[in-house]
Amino acid sequence: MKDFSFYAPTEVVFGRESEEKVAQLVKKYGGSRVLVHYGGQSAKRSGLLDKVCGLLAKDGIEYVELGGVVPNPRLSKVKEGIALCREKGVDLILAIGGGSVIDSSKAIAYGVPYEGDVWDFYAGKAAPETCLPVASVLTIPAAGSEMSEASVITNDEGEVWLKLGYSNNISRPKFAIMNPERTFTLPAYQTAAGVTDIMLHTMERYFNPDCDMTVTDAIAEALMRTMKDCVFAVLKNPEDYRNRAQIMWAGSLAHNDVTGYRVNGDWATHQIEHELSAMFDVTHGAGLAVVWPSWARYVMKENVSRFVRFAVNVMGVENDYTDPEGTALKGIAAMERFYHAIGMPNSIHELIGREVTEEEIVEMANKCTRNGTITQGKFKVLRMEDIAEIYRMAR
Amino acid sequence: MKDFSFYAPTEVVFGRESEEKVAQLVKKYGGSRVLVHYGGQSAKRSGLLDKVCGLLAKDGIEYVELGGVVPNPRLSKVKEGIALCREKGVDLILAIGGGSVIDSSKAIAYGVPYEGDVWDFYAGKAAPETCLPVASVLTIPAAGSEMSEASVITNDEGEVWLKLGYSNNISRPKFAIMNPERTFTLPAYQTAAGVTDIMLHTMERYFNPDCDMTVTDAIAEALMRTMKDCVFAVLKNPEDYRNRAQIMWAGSLAHNDVTGYRVNGDWATHQIEHELSAMFDVTHGAGLAVVWPSWARYVMKENVSRFVRFAVNVMGVENDYTDPEGTALKGIAAMERFYHAIGMPNSIHELIGREVTEEEIVEMANKCTRNGTITQGKFKVLRMEDIAEIYRMAR
Repeated sequence: MKDFSFYAPTEVVFGRESEEKVAQLVKKYGGSRVLVHYGGQSAKRSGLLDKVCGLLAKDGIEYVELGGVVPNPRLSKVKEGIALCREKGVDLILAIGGGSVIDSSKAIAYGVPYEGDVWDFYAGKAAPETCLPVASVLTIPAAGSEMSEASVITNDEGEVWLKLGYSNNISRPKFAIMNPERTFTLPAYQTAAGVTDIMLHTMERYFNPDCDMTVTDAIAEALMRTMKDCVFAVLKNPEDYRNRAQIMWAGSLAHNDVTGYRVNGDWATHQIEHELSAMFDVTHGAGLAVVWPSWARYVMKENVSRFVRFAVNVMGVENDYTDPEGTALKGIAAMERFYHAIGMPNSIHELIGREVTEEEIVEMANKCTRNGTITQGKFKVLRMEDIAEIYRMAR
Repeated sequence: MKDFSFYAPTEVVFGRESEEKVAQLVKKYGGSRVLVHYGGQSAKRSGLLDKVCGLLAKDGIEYVELGGVVPNPRLSKVKEGIALCREKGVDLILAIGGGSVIDSSKAIAYGVPYEGDVWDFYAGKAAPETCLPVASVLTIPAAGSEMSEASVITNDEGEVWLKLGYSNNISRPKFAIMNPERTFTLPAYQTAAGVTDIMLHTMERYFNPDCDMTVTDAIAEALMRTMKDCVFAVLKNPEDYRNRAQIMWAGSLAHNDVTGYRVNGDWATHQIEHELSAMFDVTHGAGLAVVWPSWARYVMKENVSRFVRFAVNVMGVENDYTDPEGTALKGIAAMERFYHAIGMPNSIHELIGREVTEEEIVEMANKCTRNGTITQGKFKVLRMEDIAEIYRMAR
């Protein structure tokens, strides 16, 4: 059994009107000049941005706003944030939004006290010694960035865009305000993509090469089973507070290492999807729904009994003891049908609206392995040609 | 649905030889003069105490030792610790042991910077503004104190001993070192009592008046189901690393609010048991095994469907849809048989070796309700006479 560590220091304040506590929390964690970082129009339209800024001002906390973060958040915006923070002497970054905004905030937080290029951290050329405190008012449950040490940034500065992740415990957010009512207006597609991402964060950990933390595995299965029911409930009734709440809280649990220690997880599906997002700028969760079934069929024989357990305990497939592989495949097919039922695509064609070309597949497989210099995955170690084959299976 | 908060900042370092990191972690959390606090002979006999002290000394960290903490830890020892810490200028308290030692450490940590009597906090007369950092090298998985904000102390200064708990986030331990190998030598009775305590920490949360966090409930059920298998495995083979590891990690998860937010839980079983421990100085987990079935039968009708769900999802009872109460009662009986199967008592008689008297029952019910001035429990609010009846049912 592998050793692990667990560190989830983020203070979560969960419930209706939880954003009322924002000024109190900012002060508690040492913020006096805050960067309020957000994405597009929805934070404005909903009134949340104004509300948060009003509460900060009322408590005498200075702030400066920076919006315009896009999905698959970009290095250029991060650098704009770093410059702004330095100019204004910002001492805490408050993200209002989902994973993209929080990831962008973490990158800014690393960059402000660093003399070099913040991309150095993502490119593996340097490690930050310190970073500004980050916190969030969460509006999109999906990425789990509100409690995690991870962030993913797309470098949009060169001709070829590169999407890379960087993880460091020093960026774990100080607090996360979660009001499920703020997710009522999430469109169905974003809701479903979010749940797909949440389940995948658990699945990446669940399909690991050790598979011997029985209590953690049982917790992971419980979370995945629950999410299946919750997503249908909120797709039917977007203002179902109770089920919105389960999804929101599960989004954090799925990525704070309660369902498995991140470092021991597989993560190939995420890496393979990152190249799809980088090339076609698609929604991360939708990309995951396309990649996972092909990944699963490709790697299944590494540990068929693990896939059998997943099929039975998560997907509710009857265990045909005479045919483990058949049972495992039924579990994968059931997950594929689940994705379709919640409005997620089942192929790259459905995802991007056209056939992906062999050239594009080779380019993505190349980038995913840094031109064949690294592998991906731990459940099965994947080389460039394995990854190309998974793209082909998913086309 | 009730709002909640979640705050579990303790850094967990889990695995074989994890104690090797003790000096590094003490330094990380600002310790330079450490109180090494422990219980009886087992920490010495196992060599763990010497090992930890040797590692501290090697890294230039000063330390002073204080042993002799007993189960149901006492105020007199806490005051000895406070005096010692003040004399030696201690800046971090390192507990080596289980819940009793960690609880005693938390009380010392509150007391050192406080001018008044540390009992004030437990008696509800004052609230601490600050406390020394606490950390642990865990050797007994049970109390969950290694990640929790709770501690329970027995005031042994008056003629009538009083056992009271106090909870405050400022005492959440900074780090917890968990090496499952250190639990191999735990006697069967302590092992079983520990698992009983772990399951009860989850059950106290699971039987709450709201019962509507479906993802949290599913996680709680997963943890409880898993523990049942693990305890039989380690009772059969005390050196079963994998199952010892599950129990050790579950002990933390069961009390760090992943399985439910403490403040929303019931806790009557714990409060009723505290009086048994205070009067007869019995093992906490064994007392819980005695109290819970009677509590459950007494309160069941408040929410039969909750007990049905527990019976089916945790105890594996077949759901007789024509008879919900019958199904619920079968679940309680199954839990009672489980306790007996792992060597826990089923009655106060079995627990203390003689009949409990009616006078003792009345005295315990009185103390449990501060002479009828407070109630216990939330699933069903219990008054003095309710609690006396539960003791009678458990006699």
